[in-house]
Amino acid sequence: MNSPIASAQLEARTARERYRAGECLPTAGVAPGMAQANLLAVPREYAYDFLLFAQRNPKPCPVLDVTDPGSPRTVLAPTADLRTDLPKYRVWRDGELVDEPTDATEAWAEHPDLVAFLIGCSFTFETPLQRAGIEVRHIAEGTNVPMYRTNRQCRPSGAFHGEMVVSMRPIPSDRVAEAAMISGRYPAVHGSPVHVGDPAGLGISDLARPDFGDAVPVHDGEVPVFWACGVTPQAAVMASRLPFAITHAPGYMFVSDVSDTTYEV
Amino acid sequence: MNSPIASAQLEARTARERYRAGECLPTAGVAPGMAQANLLAVPREYAYDFLLFAQRNPKPCPVLDVTDPGSPRTVLAPTADLRTDLPKYRVWRDGELVDEPTDATEAWAEHPDLVAFLIGCSFTFETPLQRAGIEVRHIAEGTNVPMYRTNRQCRPSGAFHGEMVVSMRPIPSDRVAEAAMISGRYPAVHGSPVHVGDPAGLGISDLARPDFGDAVPVHDGEVPVFWACGVTPQAAVMASRLPFAITHAPGYMFVSDVSDTTYEV
Repeated sequence: MNSPIASAQLEARTARERYRAGECLPTAGVAPGMAQANLLAVPREYAYDFLLFAQRNPKPCPVLDVTDPGSPRTVLAPTADLRTDLPKYRVWRDGELVDEPTDATEAWAEHPDLVAFLIGCSFTFETPLQRAGIEVRHIAEGTNVPMYRTNRQCRPSGAFHGEMVVSMRPIPSDRVAEAAMISGRYPAVHGSPVHVGDPAGLGISDLARPDFGDAVPVHDGEVPVFWACGVTPQAAVMASRLPFAITHAPGYMFVSDVSDTTYEV
Repeated sequence: MNSPIASAQLEARTARERYRAGECLPTAGVAPGMAQANLLAVPREYAYDFLLFAQRNPKPCPVLDVTDPGSPRTVLAPTADLRTDLPKYRVWRDGELVDEPTDATEAWAEHPDLVAFLIGCSFTFETPLQRAGIEVRHIAEGTNVPMYRTNRQCRPSGAFHGEMVVSMRPIPSDRVAEAAMISGRYPAVHGSPVHVGDPAGLGISDLARPDFGDAVPVHDGEVPVFWACGVTPQAAVMASRLPFAITHAPGYMFVSDVSDTTYEV
């Protein structure tokens, strides 16, 4: 257990145990180097539609693992229980947010055939951005990444439709190309930016008022850079008025045992 | 229609029209620069299991598009009809190859809810290999790429299980790294090699006797390099004894209107 990966895996497992015991804190910066994931769990009858929605919209919905129906186990962390090991969940009925528990066991039990999707998270490429000396503003500010709904519709699939959600990081003009290339090496965790520059091009009217997360300042000489975001499935649950779903709460991710480097091409 | 892409798209459309009219030739070298794809069509009741099989085995089964149930249309080529526009098909019953028609309309009509999967093909990265001055042996020899079953089991999903199939290209020792890096930039079309060197490591006993395609010579100073292969779904259809499936015949691919460069990261 002396290698950096083994020690990060131990930190991931310990964090999950704390969340299981009730701790409720955002996961940014937890177990650095271990991939974190967005969660969406839906009844089996909606699983094909969502898996195809993800295939059709791979930038916002890069699927890292899918559980067997009824199982809370994932290959991303064999000791984890998806019902309890995230710090905060959201329960959705008919597209409405109805609860934000720290333990989803009760909601999970409502559907014996729930299928959980674990979806890549941009935290994975933030580490290599920082290593390259590119400041990740929301980390520097100690806040949650700002996320926005856009006017870009996802390609629909069966019951699922909705707009793409993006996250935004201000990047100095002379580092934009590098930020695009670095994140582009991680296609399984949203990959390269979907938009660089004027927020109006995505139908975003005010960067200071994100739809999820916290606003961050954009300084002189910086350009807002937008990446597809794993909150997109939650927007699809809302837009599609899905009868039932459980997701993570934005920023309160699943911390896996898989190294970020696994997703680098 | 004077751009290189427009002229390649025209060539792709013309080729599909010839196949529709009955021409039956391998597609290697057809419409260079346009992505070609493997085909697997299964009844809707097996579609989720296969889509998840593909998600669990992305190197052999990179999904480029999935049709709506019953529709022979794909976004990869809006004018194409998947029932007629490939040069040769295979029809499978209970995992047995029962027919190799040049027109699949009749077989397709047996199941009104057939779902077709279009899966990336290594032809896409062969063009950049050649541009880098790396000889692609089976192209130089004018034969079909050699393909082998392996001892590596795919991660199963519902009705689908089976071993991974690989394609092999002999590469000079001093170009192996470059070949790995170039193909690795195309994760949607099998990506980087799964194995470099001794075929025995994959359970392949004799390179001269491929399970599909044609043998090619491996010269002194060359290393056999193995890539995950889009024939893997056909091996899964056989191993899983799937009641019904339609696939392309190996080497007789679907020629799309999408540029290979679309799949470069």
